[in-house]
Amino acid sequence: MKCRMCGNPGEIKLIRHNIILCRDDFFIFIKRQVRKGIYETKMFSRNDRIMVAVSGGKDSLVCWLLLEELGYTTFGLHIDLGIGEFSKISREKVEKFAKKRRLNYEILNIKDILGFGIEELSKGQRTCSICGLIKRYWLNRYAVEHGFTAIATGHNLNDESAALLGNILHWQIGYISRQYPVLPAIHPKLVKRVKPLYRLEENEIRLYADLHNIEYINFSCPMRKGATSPVYKSALNFIEKNSPGTNHNFLFQFLEKYRYYFKKEGKLNLKECSNCGMPTTEEVCSYCKFLFKEQKHAV
Amino acid sequence: MKCRMCGNPGEIKLIRHNIILCRDDFFIFIKRQVRKGIYETKMFSRNDRIMVAVSGGKDSLVCWLLLEELGYTTFGLHIDLGIGEFSKISREKVEKFAKKRRLNYEILNIKDILGFGIEELSKGQRTCSICGLIKRYWLNRYAVEHGFTAIATGHNLNDESAALLGNILHWQIGYISRQYPVLPAIHPKLVKRVKPLYRLEENEIRLYADLHNIEYINFSCPMRKGATSPVYKSALNFIEKNSPGTNHNFLFQFLEKYRYYFKKEGKLNLKECSNCGMPTTEEVCSYCKFLFKEQKHAV
Repeated sequence: MKCRMCGNPGEIKLIRHNIILCRDDFFIFIKRQVRKGIYETKMFSRNDRIMVAVSGGKDSLVCWLLLEELGYTTFGLHIDLGIGEFSKISREKVEKFAKKRRLNYEILNIKDILGFGIEELSKGQRTCSICGLIKRYWLNRYAVEHGFTAIATGHNLNDESAALLGNILHWQIGYISRQYPVLPAIHPKLVKRVKPLYRLEENEIRLYADLHNIEYINFSCPMRKGATSPVYKSALNFIEKNSPGTNHNFLFQFLEKYRYYFKKEGKLNLKECSNCGMPTTEEVCSYCKFLFKEQKHAV
Repeated sequence: MKCRMCGNPGEIKLIRHNIILCRDDFFIFIKRQVRKGIYETKMFSRNDRIMVAVSGGKDSLVCWLLLEELGYTTFGLHIDLGIGEFSKISREKVEKFAKKRRLNYEILNIKDILGFGIEELSKGQRTCSICGLIKRYWLNRYAVEHGFTAIATGHNLNDESAALLGNILHWQIGYISRQYPVLPAIHPKLVKRVKPLYRLEENEIRLYADLHNIEYINFSCPMRKGATSPVYKSALNFIEKNSPGTNHNFLFQFLEKYRYYFKKEGKLNLKECSNCGMPTTEEVCSYCKFLFKEQKHAV
């Protein structure tokens, strides 16, 4: 079992590529995949000011580390969602990671903004979608207000493949047509969103994190019960076990060729929210609608 | 728990429709779904001579029974594949079913035609795809030679949904664009192929079979190990358990609307095989190529 690249003893098997690598060449492989993704999708340049959305999980921390290693200018933003112990540990992981490597970062506390944490959301709501809405809104608003030109998230190949499957099973043509590792800044107040790790599998990222002694939060949010995306991921993992490379081919062939089949209905027409001024397709943005609803409940 | 239709005690729950029915109204529901499918896709008319491909499993036997109950002219063709005990029992189930109901049928024995059964196929070949090739070829050839105008198979909603998923995961655009419950007779020697049960779930068909005391073979072919379609079906079943109706919506929205997104590359150009005269896209059809290869091995 020799490393395919250098001939030294190999220790890491990449099943979908059917190769074995030594540790050093695995690191080179990972960086090469990320660099390839950045170049092929024209994700960003050295002139971009990149804000990395760091949750404290392995993916976003590895994303931050890799962008630094590749020489980009980065800044980490962590949103403290106010979900008890989960949020407390997540925050600690981010702070420890950043301080150890002397990276610039900030913590945005949802309780300071809303007056309550995700934990205290009105019952009966679909918590994951509300939480996603709040995170997307504040990531973008923070980036706009602080002059960042790209928001990087840790979404990996399995995340993207599962999202694509979910959108296809429900024929969400709008979402399908826009699915790409780069979501362009189609409005002056919308910052470009990028996914530098889209070419890496979850287990490759976990291994990279472990071999770099990155401490990350390794349990899921306690409130995510009932979310659908883990179901699509599990279904795809099951298929992947039977035919390795399925996720890879499904996603990459879509990105390279078949997404153009879905182009027709993919155009968004953005204006500014009459309440907060941030971009939206409607008169009032979803975030402000949510706030009004919460206030009504509070009265 | 009353029947949604008549108010009498209900005993059957249809999860994807979220309704409870009594036994009689379940039978009406099943027939209505099949009739709806036949009408909506212009599958065939009373003038068609329908050959039902009966394997001895629940789906094809229920298909045969329902077409009879709906007043169509049917004939059953069973292909004895020569796979030991599995083929023997399958054949017995078909003969018993037909004799009990005085239905016309015939048995086509692959061993008589080829000189060997599927069981004795050259090692190392992908048995399921070869077996499928032989079945498709002889179903069509028999129907052509005996003047049938439609070949009906027992494919159900789960079969079709799993096939669609497999084709999408591998972006098989040609297959995707042609997937429909009616495959038209696009050549004088190609008989129309239809799937009257495409609106019914596997468990609904099993229940219909059991309530009608149909004896069917209830174990899978012993040679199917390694086939991919059961994997897609299991993956979809897993998703379906979490969100009932996924298979239904995925398939029906595709058939009604989204299949048109894939139309471009779906045209087939058929000519006649230079060896046997049956339709093919190439000079020699896949069946004859397979025969030549087998003979070479035999020499």
